[in-house]
Amino acid sequence: MKTKGKIYVVGIGPGNREHMSVRAIEAIQKADVIIGYKTYIDLIRDLVAGKEVIDSGMKKEVERCNLTLDKAMEGHQVAIISSGDAGVYGMAGIMLEVKYERMSDIEIEVVPGITAASAASAALGAPMMHDFTVISLSDLLTDWELIRKRLECAAVGDFIIALYNPKSMGRVHQIEEAREIFLKHKAKTTPVGIVKNAKRKDEEIILTDLENMLNHEIDMLTVVIVGNSNTYIKDGKMITPRGYRI
Amino acid sequence: MKTKGKIYVVGIGPGNREHMSVRAIEAIQKADVIIGYKTYIDLIRDLVAGKEVIDSGMKKEVERCNLTLDKAMEGHQVAIISSGDAGVYGMAGIMLEVKYERMSDIEIEVVPGITAASAASAALGAPMMHDFTVISLSDLLTDWELIRKRLECAAVGDFIIALYNPKSMGRVHQIEEAREIFLKHKAKTTPVGIVKNAKRKDEEIILTDLENMLNHEIDMLTVVIVGNSNTYIKDGKMITPRGYRI
Repeated sequence: MKTKGKIYVVGIGPGNREHMSVRAIEAIQKADVIIGYKTYIDLIRDLVAGKEVIDSGMKKEVERCNLTLDKAMEGHQVAIISSGDAGVYGMAGIMLEVKYERMSDIEIEVVPGITAASAASAALGAPMMHDFTVISLSDLLTDWELIRKRLECAAVGDFIIALYNPKSMGRVHQIEEAREIFLKHKAKTTPVGIVKNAKRKDEEIILTDLENMLNHEIDMLTVVIVGNSNTYIKDGKMITPRGYRI
Repeated sequence: MKTKGKIYVVGIGPGNREHMSVRAIEAIQKADVIIGYKTYIDLIRDLVAGKEVIDSGMKKEVERCNLTLDKAMEGHQVAIISSGDAGVYGMAGIMLEVKYERMSDIEIEVVPGITAASAASAALGAPMMHDFTVISLSDLLTDWELIRKRLECAAVGDFIIALYNPKSMGRVHQIEEAREIFLKHKAKTTPVGIVKNAKRKDEEIILTDLENMLNHEIDMLTVVIVGNSNTYIKDGKMITPRGYRI
């Protein structure tokens, strides 16, 4: 009898082993096939020794999910890797969609992870202690006008705002427009934390404000956290009070 | 010479050991004093054997942080425990605030964890694949009018919305008002996932919609996730497509 295949959609967190969950490590250990974007696979290279590893380039998400399903249907235990949380802009959704499209009954377990906003937040101090939004500035799959509307709503609601994919080589104006939208509703002194490689090797932290944020390097490995009207910076930490009386 | 004290603000994730990070387990192991709300300490009781454990009731956050600082200043390694992510409505902010208030130079490490929205999302399938907001319905520390405004902004922006602290024994109307606000901007068929004890013992999942969500049990152990205009339910899973062509 053929073994029953299974798919683990694994969020490995920010990248360092210490911020992976026990279940994520276990899922990778159980799997005999590991599939993912090469940059993420490299972060767990030591865990995948002796396994069949299929790494691919960016923008191959659907192909990767089809391959994962093929392998699971052959009876393999397959781990498909996301950075951060597999359920936040990760591979969980597209993997389930591909499964339904192909009318498969393969079991899929989504293994959650620490998302980039949480990792960046811990690096900065405690900026996300109150209601927040997470918005991706990538308009590859989303209409830019909808993203603009969300930026506006997030600013009007005085949310703390975590920006994912703030900027890439070919995409530079979005972060500029986002800042302009924020400045319509938020003070120019609103604290901004820019974290590159949050909670992994080569972590870099910049504390600035809405007025000056564009004077710093921002790229695809960066998460930008914009405070609410109560957020402040003290002794190198960014803090949003929740309202306790001390 | 006295040992130098240190404070770890530890997010233990949803509760089950398997969703704790390696660093969270390590921090608790390194600490000789463990401080936290009793319900959370109970989730890690086996990890704290042989240590000084100080558990306290709810609403004692400031007291708990002062005690944590006292112990660290005596030279102890102290872990103060949050559920989920210590940086999302957790103990990270108030701990830093108490430190600054008392002008201490004790080192504080914030150890991030998997927040309740990620745990609930993994249990439901993949509802949080796009821009989302996290809003707490608790008005103990936040003006209800501000929360109402944020609910409105989140609905207008067509965000996926995760509601924390949706309802308690003495607080029942907030979730009803939240639903009314959502219905002004979202279809009554918008999928809603209600998850109790996400990714821990006794997990319960309900899939419903905005029209019918109040016919189900919602309490303080529950996270409610409301979809965006593209979210759908299929084969018992709640999915928000990100926009890939399959």
